[in-house]
Amino acid sequence: MAKRMNLFYAQSGGPTAVINATACGVIETARRHRDRIGRVYAGRNGIIGALEEDMIDVFRERASTIAALRHTPGAAFGSARFKLKGLEESAAEYERLIEVFRAHDIGYFLYNGGNDSMDTAHKVSQLSTRLGHPITCIGVPKTVDNDLPVTDNCPGFGSVAKYVAVSTLEAAMDVRSMSRTSTKVFILEVMGRHAGWIAAAGGLAGEGRDDPPHVILFPEVPFDQAAFLERVRQSVQRNDYCVIVASEGARYPDGRFLADAGTRDAFGHVQLGGVGQVLAAMVKDELGYKYHYAIADYLQRSARHIASAVDEEQAYAVGRAAVELALEGQTAVMPTIERRSDSPYRWRIGVAPLSRVANREKMLPRSFIRRDGFGITAACRRYLAPLIVGEAYPPYRAGLPRYATLKAVPVRRRLDPSR
Amino acid sequence: MAKRMNLFYAQSGGPTAVINATACGVIETARRHRDRIGRVYAGRNGIIGALEEDMIDVFRERASTIAALRHTPGAAFGSARFKLKGLEESAAEYERLIEVFRAHDIGYFLYNGGNDSMDTAHKVSQLSTRLGHPITCIGVPKTVDNDLPVTDNCPGFGSVAKYVAVSTLEAAMDVRSMSRTSTKVFILEVMGRHAGWIAAAGGLAGEGRDDPPHVILFPEVPFDQAAFLERVRQSVQRNDYCVIVASEGARYPDGRFLADAGTRDAFGHVQLGGVGQVLAAMVKDELGYKYHYAIADYLQRSARHIASAVDEEQAYAVGRAAVELALEGQTAVMPTIERRSDSPYRWRIGVAPLSRVANREKMLPRSFIRRDGFGITAACRRYLAPLIVGEAYPPYRAGLPRYATLKAVPVRRRLDPSR
Repeated sequence: MAKRMNLFYAQSGGPTAVINATACGVIETARRHRDRIGRVYAGRNGIIGALEEDMIDVFRERASTIAALRHTPGAAFGSARFKLKGLEESAAEYERLIEVFRAHDIGYFLYNGGNDSMDTAHKVSQLSTRLGHPITCIGVPKTVDNDLPVTDNCPGFGSVAKYVAVSTLEAAMDVRSMSRTSTKVFILEVMGRHAGWIAAAGGLAGEGRDDPPHVILFPEVPFDQAAFLERVRQSVQRNDYCVIVASEGARYPDGRFLADAGTRDAFGHVQLGGVGQVLAAMVKDELGYKYHYAIADYLQRSARHIASAVDEEQAYAVGRAAVELALEGQTAVMPTIERRSDSPYRWRIGVAPLSRVANREKMLPRSFIRRDGFGITAACRRYLAPLIVGEAYPPYRAGLPRYATLKAVPVRRRLDPSR
Repeated sequence: MAKRMNLFYAQSGGPTAVINATACGVIETARRHRDRIGRVYAGRNGIIGALEEDMIDVFRERASTIAALRHTPGAAFGSARFKLKGLEESAAEYERLIEVFRAHDIGYFLYNGGNDSMDTAHKVSQLSTRLGHPITCIGVPKTVDNDLPVTDNCPGFGSVAKYVAVSTLEAAMDVRSMSRTSTKVFILEVMGRHAGWIAAAGGLAGEGRDDPPHVILFPEVPFDQAAFLERVRQSVQRNDYCVIVASEGARYPDGRFLADAGTRDAFGHVQLGGVGQVLAAMVKDELGYKYHYAIADYLQRSARHIASAVDEEQAYAVGRAAVELALEGQTAVMPTIERRSDSPYRWRIGVAPLSRVANREKMLPRSFIRRDGFGITAACRRYLAPLIVGEAYPPYRAGLPRYATLKAVPVRRRLDPSR
């Protein structure tokens, strides 16, 4: 390109502890290529920022603020659950996107998200060519759910995995020490609507037969109440306590979730919450044990204070790679993480076409789930273990992490506020 | 004493992230006084270990294991919710305790717990003199609830306060970044049955009017549903989101808890849990906002990975002081933490008679609660802020904290297993 085009970056879906490390990778790499990239604009509230021409001029931030994004949780520019549908169905939105991109000389679109976002990036790529304003579209992987295909793992997952493994270990030590007279059964409810990756990470807390967690419930394994209760009873008999890590997506053989709050988000997904309570009531009613349950909810994906160093490094690396792929002239691709070996853990950045990534979910393979359905296998442990290594602590002041605060200077609008 | 007497140490009630730092302080200090102290025995499962003559010979552990207790959560020797009642009512138990202490040449009884435990230590002191086997009884403060009187603060509280402050900050950043299209209201349910100290600590996450948490619910303030909902509505209008930190002990003006699971523990306390869900339903039904809630439960008190360095230091110091007080010939006392100044924070160890500590709860003073009842005052902030300072990180291996594992060699029994 003769003209230096601008780069548009947006965050999509639920934040992770390290999504801003990816933003940092994107921005710092773009800054090193001022000969090719004009400015970096970030969508306020994700793709909605593009649709509403509401963008933040990222180069107006101090370099130290951008560097601090690397250790800042949340989605620094705002994110959204907003799914563009098919090119026909959501034609107006896609055309508006291209219009905004054209008006702001945006030649690069980097979309940082999960399955749905990869699909959007793919479609924008197709449409922009068709509309005569070809845009380099790069998907940038991010999801605590670890369910993107092709890539070995997803940035964001390693940190939630570390949080869940550490929390399971710590809570188990608490419960065990009190089990004689107090709580016998402790349940930790974790995220994972369809895939059991996060629940599986709880399995890293212990390895032996009597080590916690004594039961893991995966969405991939139909819930068998009798077998579950028997397992809990055995654990309490043997160890005097039982620690359970339960995925929010645990479901009955007929597909019903154990807990279904009845509301749906913008993607039409059922909003879950409450499996911990359902299991607790079951344990109490059927076995009579005293219980406690914790619901980690957003704490698990925002816990930057206990982020995995490997995860943070990979999150930064995919951001950097996304810019480099764009500058190489690639489009409709996503940087991936390729595992070279388990131990010592070695990885490198690869690349996958968005068409192979979009709208596909990677479930926990059956070989990662123990035959009885209540735990993880050695293969799963080999896969998970390297992802939680290293503590990428944020800096602190007066006992609290010092997280970045943006100036968030808006980009001047060039279009009518038609939407 | 001509003869070197042995020292009995027991942990009581719910563990904290740093109760084992106190154990470490006791044991390491006792080891330095082998001329005066024979051996240190720890009760397995707290005071039950004495009643059942089930004790651990602590000097059989490696010095490195004892040192590692300093960064190990849970109650390393086991704890119990087991309350000895009045000297008449529980006469058999008290007499049994003295019998076991006499059989094992135990001249020092260090009891590490909260209000109930201070009462027990006090009564053992009285009875042992009456029964002709006088025992030096030292209460050692420990409670996440921070509700012991006389002492400025309680070891264990600083770490849960840090956990709650950091988690509130991080979750708030997550919610804020998604509020445009997703969750508007986030509720973090924290411990604190009668006293709002832990909920108050959430207030450290932000200071300005629009900073999270936007609402704190204390047990000390009767719940006013209309005012609460109005406050939530205002926060969402102004900031597009609302973060609530709710004490499990939040209650209606008539004294009913917002959530009462209906079960009671050994002390007759109602077992709580679920205020998060009750508030969430209220917000949804009355205001229609999308919500999420987290229940920190045991995670908050076992989170050694984010323990406060000040708290860990004080926990160790009260353990050391307890042994030193015993060796000075003091009895029926508890080492306290005396604050010398807020900023810079200075403290020292003091001492209080158990009679002034036992069975009294220190509530959050009214001057620490904002006039509207939904936040903390500057005075509260000055009190809380120093307690969360410093990160006392545990060592890690392969991504997980390396917590101590005891050999737990039992002390040979000398009595008939009459109980």
